[in-house]
Amino acid sequence: MISFDTIREAHDRIRPHIHRTAVLTNQTINDRAGADLFFKCENFQKIGAFKARGGLNAVLQVAANQEGHSVTTHSSGNHAQAVAFAARQVGLPAYIVMPRTAPQVKKDAVRGYGAEVIECEPTLDAREAGVRAVMERTGAVLVHPFDDDRVIAGQATATKELIEDFGMDNAFDTILAPVGGGGLLSGTSLTTHFMSPSTRVIAGEPEGAADAVLSFRSGQVEKAPYINTIADGLMTSLSERTLRIIREHVTEILTVSDPEIIAAMRLVWERMKIIIEPSCAVPLAVVLKHKNQFAGQRIGIILTGGNVDLGKLPF
Amino acid sequence: MISFDTIREAHDRIRPHIHRTAVLTNQTINDRAGADLFFKCENFQKIGAFKARGGLNAVLQVAANQEGHSVTTHSSGNHAQAVAFAARQVGLPAYIVMPRTAPQVKKDAVRGYGAEVIECEPTLDAREAGVRAVMERTGAVLVHPFDDDRVIAGQATATKELIEDFGMDNAFDTILAPVGGGGLLSGTSLTTHFMSPSTRVIAGEPEGAADAVLSFRSGQVEKAPYINTIADGLMTSLSERTLRIIREHVTEILTVSDPEIIAAMRLVWERMKIIIEPSCAVPLAVVLKHKNQFAGQRIGIILTGGNVDLGKLPF
Repeated sequence: MISFDTIREAHDRIRPHIHRTAVLTNQTINDRAGADLFFKCENFQKIGAFKARGGLNAVLQVAANQEGHSVTTHSSGNHAQAVAFAARQVGLPAYIVMPRTAPQVKKDAVRGYGAEVIECEPTLDAREAGVRAVMERTGAVLVHPFDDDRVIAGQATATKELIEDFGMDNAFDTILAPVGGGGLLSGTSLTTHFMSPSTRVIAGEPEGAADAVLSFRSGQVEKAPYINTIADGLMTSLSERTLRIIREHVTEILTVSDPEIIAAMRLVWERMKIIIEPSCAVPLAVVLKHKNQFAGQRIGIILTGGNVDLGKLPF
Repeated sequence: MISFDTIREAHDRIRPHIHRTAVLTNQTINDRAGADLFFKCENFQKIGAFKARGGLNAVLQVAANQEGHSVTTHSSGNHAQAVAFAARQVGLPAYIVMPRTAPQVKKDAVRGYGAEVIECEPTLDAREAGVRAVMERTGAVLVHPFDDDRVIAGQATATKELIEDFGMDNAFDTILAPVGGGGLLSGTSLTTHFMSPSTRVIAGEPEGAADAVLSFRSGQVEKAPYINTIADGLMTSLSERTLRIIREHVTEILTVSDPEIIAAMRLVWERMKIIIEPSCAVPLAVVLKHKNQFAGQRIGIILTGGNVDLGKLPF
């Protein structure tokens, strides 16, 4: 069970290693949305994404508790960098299993942190088999991308900062985060439950990876009917652990199409002059698609990351 | 003559209309440069560029002194938006002469501020003729992009904020700005002279618009031997006014090639996760090209703007 103390301890643990990222606002986007949006800029976080928080919270505990002499994970991108980065902070070797289709910039970044990249086919089975092989060969400790309370508690600290900075005196009506495996969404909804219980948490999910919306409805971990989206960080399904937290603390999951995601991404690039990756644009796409639902609200949005392959932009 | 009082008054005048923009640092880029770089993020400024400062300082005075009932200018981009934006703040019509080759996103933005765009051939002669025609037709007051003390005093306020925030207790060794017509560079060097006289001011100029470096040497306003650069904001030549200030207060002008500009731009996009336009990357390109000259220094860099046409990226 993740309590507010767990999240506070996670924050204290990782604070020396992370940025307290800026929260930005933009008048043009507020006008377009008809709401007051507060963007928590985790694209400015270490490794360019919020995943640094969860990776650090797990790896720092592996090192402090001497649970193993190295760490491993599988990831399509940002969690890979997060574990590699965290392992370097404490001097542990890291073995990262990545689908061969992951953006080159992300593979390069992982190697840049001194980790070994093991490429595999872009399927969940191949990724899990790759990690098992690493664990047998090296004894490395697995840091799962989302099915891990320590990772969830780490991700939860982004919302803790957002609420501390802009949601205490004047509570957010809604906080939005995207959902892939559900680690960020679990952490976001737990922190909001503890710190700002009147605030709704709503998730955005790509139509082309619509598993969470099905799982949320049925109460079982479901697969997406198909996987085809530009939001490459959101292709994974929930776990039992994240589904349980999300069913308890999240109000709703809304889906958006790839054109809607790309339009929201482009709006942020052009108007806010900051770089966000497609997965990161999903919550804003939700707000712009469902204007009536969010009209006049005070809304927090976790901007999750800015690691794009500049050679492969959708514009 | 622009005194420090002129710059302080400009700052007080425009303050209600502008952002006090963030100053960002980046460890990876510091490591790459071997120096401590402080980036003044005018890409986050109103209209996406520092030009909002100079445009406002001029247009607010035109309105306050009732010098005319409308304003005009010619500009390849950001100054056009600046005058249009400033005119809207005070309710004056604005007529903006723009070369037909200017990025579509900039023409759209000017029209978005309610100004009338008059397209012309992409030559200085055609631009000046276009403005003369507007003035005859409408009686509009010209707000020149750089050959105007009020514009220069407005641009000078960016460096005032940078030095106030990070250059008082611990003076910058160098402040860098790009040079086109020299309005920003004049303002930067005047502010630095008044506030931090031990700080050198160095300008960066594209090899493909190398007029300022010639003028700086000869003491005459020279033309570039050829114009061919991605830095579309830096194609103009100095005026007598800006050359005089620059010769007095600038230490050196260094040139960089387009590949060096693009590499610096890409580094900022990938590492800082912020959007800057090619002209804006010139000073960082200078620092990375001349590492020995800047090694170990504390350096301020004016990031001038972030208005890029996402459909025409050089990556």
